[in-house]
Amino acid sequence: MEQVKPNPANSSPQTPLSLLEKAATVFDDCPSIIYNDTTYTWSQTHRRCLQLACSLSSLGITRGDVVSIIAPNIPAMYEVHFAVPFTAAILNTINTRLDARTVSVLLQHCQSKLLFVDYFSRSLVLEAISLFPPDAEVRPLLVLITDDDQDDDAVDSDFGCTYESLVKNGDPGFKWVRPKSEWDPIVLNYTSGTTSAPKGVVHCHRGIYSIVVDTLIDWSVPKQPVYLWTLPMFHANGWCLPWGIAAAGGTNICLRLIVSCAWKPHWNLLPAAERARLKARQGVKVGASTEVDVVDPVSGVSVRRDGSSLGEIVLRGGSVMLGYLKDPIGTRKCLSQEGWFYTGDVGVMHPDGYLEIKDRSKDVIISGGENLSSVEVESVLYTNPAINEAAVVARPDEYWGETPCAFVSFKTGLTTKPSEKEIIEYCRAKLPHYMVPKTVVFQDELPKTSTGKIQKFVLREIANSMGKSARLSRL
Amino acid sequence: MEQVKPNPANSSPQTPLSLLEKAATVFDDCPSIIYNDTTYTWSQTHRRCLQLACSLSSLGITRGDVVSIIAPNIPAMYEVHFAVPFTAAILNTINTRLDARTVSVLLQHCQSKLLFVDYFSRSLVLEAISLFPPDAEVRPLLVLITDDDQDDDAVDSDFGCTYESLVKNGDPGFKWVRPKSEWDPIVLNYTSGTTSAPKGVVHCHRGIYSIVVDTLIDWSVPKQPVYLWTLPMFHANGWCLPWGIAAAGGTNICLRLIVSCAWKPHWNLLPAAERARLKARQGVKVGASTEVDVVDPVSGVSVRRDGSSLGEIVLRGGSVMLGYLKDPIGTRKCLSQEGWFYTGDVGVMHPDGYLEIKDRSKDVIISGGENLSSVEVESVLYTNPAINEAAVVARPDEYWGETPCAFVSFKTGLTTKPSEKEIIEYCRAKLPHYMVPKTVVFQDELPKTSTGKIQKFVLREIANSMGKSARLSRL
Repeated sequence: MEQVKPNPANSSPQTPLSLLEKAATVFDDCPSIIYNDTTYTWSQTHRRCLQLACSLSSLGITRGDVVSIIAPNIPAMYEVHFAVPFTAAILNTINTRLDARTVSVLLQHCQSKLLFVDYFSRSLVLEAISLFPPDAEVRPLLVLITDDDQDDDAVDSDFGCTYESLVKNGDPGFKWVRPKSEWDPIVLNYTSGTTSAPKGVVHCHRGIYSIVVDTLIDWSVPKQPVYLWTLPMFHANGWCLPWGIAAAGGTNICLRLIVSCAWKPHWNLLPAAERARLKARQGVKVGASTEVDVVDPVSGVSVRRDGSSLGEIVLRGGSVMLGYLKDPIGTRKCLSQEGWFYTGDVGVMHPDGYLEIKDRSKDVIISGGENLSSVEVESVLYTNPAINEAAVVARPDEYWGETPCAFVSFKTGLTTKPSEKEIIEYCRAKLPHYMVPKTVVFQDELPKTSTGKIQKFVLREIANSMGKSARLSRL
Repeated sequence: MEQVKPNPANSSPQTPLSLLEKAATVFDDCPSIIYNDTTYTWSQTHRRCLQLACSLSSLGITRGDVVSIIAPNIPAMYEVHFAVPFTAAILNTINTRLDARTVSVLLQHCQSKLLFVDYFSRSLVLEAISLFPPDAEVRPLLVLITDDDQDDDAVDSDFGCTYESLVKNGDPGFKWVRPKSEWDPIVLNYTSGTTSAPKGVVHCHRGIYSIVVDTLIDWSVPKQPVYLWTLPMFHANGWCLPWGIAAAGGTNICLRLIVSCAWKPHWNLLPAAERARLKARQGVKVGASTEVDVVDPVSGVSVRRDGSSLGEIVLRGGSVMLGYLKDPIGTRKCLSQEGWFYTGDVGVMHPDGYLEIKDRSKDVIISGGENLSSVEVESVLYTNPAINEAAVVARPDEYWGETPCAFVSFKTGLTTKPSEKEIIEYCRAKLPHYMVPKTVVFQDELPKTSTGKIQKFVLREIANSMGKSARLSRL
């Protein structure tokens, strides 16, 4: 058959931005956002986003610039998901619970041109900016977000203007700047740094669009849902639901007070052992546009689908990130030219095609040639009624190569606390010998990221600094 | 910001074919198809499609070949939507109600390599093949579909083999042939020929994938719906729902007896005037990946959004066809390089962004410099209690350029039938003068396509053959 070629009429870039135009047409006078006493409709949200985009363009924000925001789930946070990429700039949302040093590092790394600052994060941001070196090439213009629609008179010299003044002064007839290609970047998110320094994850218009449609289909999202924002929008762009709720013409209920996302709140009511089991056995499904496999990380060959052969989890498809910002080596390491994204997660594939995440690949401990999952050891430790937190990392060993080293904190109010020997014996009764921790370190509280994840790389440094465990001490 | 480039891991081609693999994994033992006494599960359907694809490949079907099917909504019709493109061939579904001459023309036009024939269409197809010229370059291999799983012994020399024998003899471990690009063609559908000879509409993998996800989202399709197939799958691939039901893990209820799709059956119960109004005022919405506008067909500039300025309806986005097969001029005519698909439909844009289809552009009559919509004249004719069918086309006129010429058929059992003069007077009471038909032609039944659409191009030929209406006759 003769070749029929794509044409501009059928190959316009996939982008989530057009979803707001659709919402403003189809759901024009339906509520888009409810926040305290404020309610917007979809045509108002559309108008406000165009006005803000117009003002950003007037300030010189242009294609490829990074614009950051540090704010909780307030209307401004929702609006920037459209308004910033409407200027062809890249949206960078920053976790409000980071420390000033990290915020400073991120802003400098992405050379952010403009930073929207919720008034609650005001002093954090001013401290972060003060940590910039005097000769810093780019310093972001600071724009203050207040809850009471203050205009520029209300801001001091640290801030260029207020968010509301930018909205008010913009032209609602602004023609938004379309991506030149669907591969153009749209958002930049930093990893939380559990395994290393935060990395800047770049997603493109097509990728975000893929995630949005996969989510709407996978969740069977109905028309005009009411969505209570508990997941922070700064976290992976609220799983892309800012765009998804527009697609469905839903109502966003915005709140400041925020529940952490990494763990479902009701799971906290479960017994510790059940929590550990849940954590270890996340069934994983992927969207319509993404494939998944578990492969040998060296050969790239699929592991047996037997529910027990460990391998690295790999993904392929539209929802996979474009790459890491300013980190071509890190990007090449996880995005193989053979067409798979190496997640760094270790899992098994069950015979029915479901996979089970076992661990981060960096958390796998190789002891005497056996691969063992630190998560499996932790799930046993969590069954001990005295233990509050547990994390297991590799400690170098002169004979076994590595051995499991457990870090634990105890519950408060205990009358007696188990000894290292008792913990080891407890594990020995429930685990194969090679999986039992050979070292137990007690801490008041384990080190965590701002989103509450245990920083294993810190524990790994401690375990390394302890030197190789000697064979005699284990006998 | 530095350029982060797409990579094979995040740019794998969008295709609806992977949806069957997902269904076979997630909904493996759930029912996929129910037909008479037969029920298949999703893993069985997956397996059968791979087996059929394997057999097709063994028969030499390869990338870019056209494979046709003429069948009602039976399981085979569903399966070929995956099995044929699994070989990288292009699926061409043929309307079972076409005449042998048209079937012959279509098969020759697309150089179909293999034709699946439902036993009910057996004699039609044999007649169509007999109309091939003796020196025809390509003659399709004929494969018979029976309801009772007959094997090859049951078929005579006209057919190479049976459908079920191809399924049975194929290897379920067949590795399906992936598209080289998401722009590779996947289906070929012929238009019904209301305005000209049927045209071969080509869609690519990405385009079909876009339509599938838009439909699932727009219809808020729940998980595992039960879908009763009343719409023929040969009609625009059943609006892409063969792939959509797989994505949702639903159950396809297949039936032979079929309701026509162009008109909702319950609308037939409405009074004729209401039917005409419904026909004239279709509100139109488009999916998440498609934009719509109404433009001046010459300048390409958007018409005023006032609900009355007529223009041509244009579309842009993922669901727009790739082009017409072997018709570069027709393709260029409707797919402008400025990036819009000119639909040939005339409409108005309302202030709220909804559009209303007024007419086919070819059906617009220009009388004395005024554009008039033939559908509006028809909707008045349909209010006449004596009229059964009405169609209005342009007749050349020496003074006005064109005048409306009405073709009507009367209801049966009338005691008196209105004259031409009475029909014209009837219209004059309800329409502006320039819109009133100047000629009325009475027919027993208006000419229609196999899907029941009135063939205006036939009426236009009759109106042209009548010569220019003379001014005197109109006075």
